Amino acid sequence: MADEDAGGSEDAGRDDAFERVVSRVRDRIDPDAEERATLEQVAAALANRAADAATDRCPDADVLRVGSTARDTWISGDRDIDVFVRFPTELDRETLEEYGLEVGHATLPEGHEEYAEHPYVKGEFDGFDVDVVPCFRVADATKIRSAVDRTPFHTQYLEARLDDDLASEVRLTKGFLKGIGVYGSNLRTRGFSGYLTELLVCEYGGFRPFLEATADWQPPVRLDPEEHGRATFDDPLVVIDPTDPERNVAAVLSPDNVARLQHYARDFLADPRHELFDPDAWEPDPLSAADLRDHLERRETTPVALRFEAPDLVDDQLYPQLRKSLAGITSGLEDRGFDVMRAATFAAADAVVLVELAVAQRPGVERHDGPPVHVRSHAEGFFEAYADDPDAYGPFVDGDRYVVERDREFTTARAFLESDRLFDVGLGAHVETALEDDYDLLAGEELTELLASEALAVELARYFEPRP
Amino acid sequence: MADEDAGGSEDAGRDDAFERVVSRVRDRIDPDAEERATLEQVAAALANRAADAATDRCPDADVLRVGSTARDTWISGDRDIDVFVRFPTELDRETLEEYGLEVGHATLPEGHEEYAEHPYVKGEFDGFDVDVVPCFRVADATKIRSAVDRTPFHTQYLEARLDDDLASEVRLTKGFLKGIGVYGSNLRTRGFSGYLTELLVCEYGGFRPFLEATADWQPPVRLDPEEHGRATFDDPLVVIDPTDPERNVAAVLSPDNVARLQHYARDFLADPRHELFDPDAWEPDPLSAADLRDHLERRETTPVALRFEAPDLVDDQLYPQLRKSLAGITSGLEDRGFDVMRAATFAAADAVVLVELAVAQRPGVERHDGPPVHVRSHAEGFFEAYADDPDAYGPFVDGDRYVVERDREFTTARAFLESDRLFDVGLGAHVETALEDDYDLLAGEELTELLASEALAVELARYFEPRP
Repeated sequence: MADEDAGGSEDAGRDDAFERVVSRVRDRIDPDAEERATLEQVAAALANRAADAATDRCPDADVLRVGSTARDTWISGDRDIDVFVRFPTELDRETLEEYGLEVGHATLPEGHEEYAEHPYVKGEFDGFDVDVVPCFRVADATKIRSAVDRTPFHTQYLEARLDDDLASEVRLTKGFLKGIGVYGSNLRTRGFSGYLTELLVCEYGGFRPFLEATADWQPPVRLDPEEHGRATFDDPLVVIDPTDPERNVAAVLSPDNVARLQHYARDFLADPRHELFDPDAWEPDPLSAADLRDHLERRETTPVALRFEAPDLVDDQLYPQLRKSLAGITSGLEDRGFDVMRAATFAAADAVVLVELAVAQRPGVERHDGPPVHVRSHAEGFFEAYADDPDAYGPFVDGDRYVVERDREFTTARAFLESDRLFDVGLGAHVETALEDDYDLLAGEELTELLASEALAVELARYFEPRP
Repeated sequence: MADEDAGGSEDAGRDDAFERVVSRVRDRIDPDAEERATLEQVAAALANRAADAATDRCPDADVLRVGSTARDTWISGDRDIDVFVRFPTELDRETLEEYGLEVGHATLPEGHEEYAEHPYVKGEFDGFDVDVVPCFRVADATKIRSAVDRTPFHTQYLEARLDDDLASEVRLTKGFLKGIGVYGSNLRTRGFSGYLTELLVCEYGGFRPFLEATADWQPPVRLDPEEHGRATFDDPLVVIDPTDPERNVAAVLSPDNVARLQHYARDFLADPRHELFDPDAWEPDPLSAADLRDHLERRETTPVALRFEAPDLVDDQLYPQLRKSLAGITSGLEDRGFDVMRAATFAAADAVVLVELAVAQRPGVERHDGPPVHVRSHAEGFFEAYADDPDAYGPFVDGDRYVVERDREFTTARAFLESDRLFDVGLGAHVETALEDDYDLLAGEELTELLASEALAVELARYFEPRP
């Protein structure tokens, strides 16, 4: 009984702490009346400007505010306003693009053009970051012509479900996901998008039940709010888009970020604290040269960094290419016997592919297994190929096979990384071009050169002092 | 047509060469009339002495000559005479052993006792090496009480089948198997026994058809001369004993020796030459220190030898133990990341376990994969175990799992081989005792110390200059 009471008061204490932390977070992230009023005023003005310019060109066009600032799920300090201009589907794509850019420029006189699936105008307006995006007004989300056509349906779906309470829970949940570093569906982060977060909060009914559910997730987890999904997906989290039964809203989410959320959900429920809402606590200090040296001395590995000028690409293009290159280089090394302990890639002005080798050197010879001796024609061919090769040991018999030991092409990882064979591994196209242009190879203590860039020094801290 | 003629005359040339070599070999290995007469005389005298001594003790006993010298399948220079003394099965085993030794000593006054499955007497007689072995005269070979009871049946079976021509083919085949180093069914060689060789020659009808058949073997090969075998065996060559349907005569034959025979059968058919009948051509010269150094320099491996006093065992016991120890030490090293390039074991006065490492050193830390984060109770236990461990990197998330990097127990292969953990791997019992007593660890150039023993220097030559 005493234990039960103690357990009960421990739980009660944890509940109090949970509420205290949440309340403090709300104070920080909920926009106040003044901030809301300013946003509403600016957004309304923008929508009017856009609507005027649009109907001038196409009387049947209309304008819709989308995104978190349209749904009251934005966090204090966010400055993003998204204005969608919808044109009838009778318009051809070329005209839509032409009208779209004209409307954008009319709305944002100082805006510039950007290119996603199709062009749009981005610019500042009264201190806000504004996108003016043209799209087709299709009958339903399964009829879309490009991904942006779907966005208005998302907004309509959520607006119908998010009351003030749930919107507030969404803000809290976003604050948490940002705090633990898993918010953002760009291809650098591969985390939770705003839309996904809002669907999950609707599904579970709030921040706390969201945490309790995710803490117990058994991936693959499948949610289908509209119970209309038929397709199957090979992702750890599958959330069928309520506006499109063929689409997994969580498709870009990495398994690592699912695991991270599960870890920190449990962590926060067990020990509620404000730190987990604080992205700065997640961001480490830049690694010092002394600490780097300590790590190298203690780890006794051979870290090698390829440093090259970062290709001029947006993160959504750059990071997939960097990861592909990292995977290619890692398997290029491991195929040659240079075991990789851990590896990472990151970019600032310079991009870096860092491979930390457990084995950086191999003997002068390598074993090469031939065919089983009883497979006569292959076996005879193999034997003849090596019998008179003065550089090969063997052929000798091991078990039922011929084996030779022959000279290795590369006895050090460095020699491979400095050779043209580096370009035979799967590299991202722009990374390949950048490496063809020039790259430095920094090994061991030479890694301290990377610390000259504060951004790279932070990445190295993340690498050498990893947390979940 | 020209090509066909050329092929024809090439074949004819090869046939001539084959016959020339075979004829020269026969001259060497077929015993001449004088050698035969001497052997017959000695063997008859021995059989009489043994029969007298046996019937004195047990009127129902009889004597049988067995082995190659009894079947005319011995090679000139062989000096082995085997005399089996058969007692009726009514005799108890104790009395059989007693009578057996008495008959042995009466036959070989200067003989000594040896112990196989049961005791027998071995000794010299008129320059021949003689075994006098007691056995039971069982009704048929499936009723045997120990392995030696089977031998008379083998002799009877073969005597009925081996005419002079086939016996001559057997001698030739034995000469070849000896020449290429695969003759002998002891557990050091794991090659072809005399009985197996004779059965194969009977089966194929001679040396040349034996070569042609083996060159095309597709293991597993199953032969069953009496077509009475029911059991299945997991061996590359299965020859069902004509006198015992449950027994594979080729059970001890290693896959390596099957492959070697196939290799040299093809080699000899393609290029008949006397060298392949010459065991001395197989036996290399002792490796010189200069050659050893050249190999080490070229291979750039880290060879490490454990040298210890060879346990005082017969080869049939010693070599299985050495091989078991080699396998245990090899996996003990590989489990710890010290990749083994090649390894071997051999014995003279000292026994040696030689492991040639491709990787002799590992970093200070090693990766340790934890459970998937979603397996909540295991995952929480893992995280708590390492979260506050100052010596561990992590736990961090990789894919769906927790991972830590923790200190390695051994960063060098030498440290492992010098530690008590060496005794945790599977070692042969007597090898373990010998290592517990004392051993030297010789690495790299220190291997030259082994060259002081000529026998070990020959083994090292075989290792560093391997042929099929």
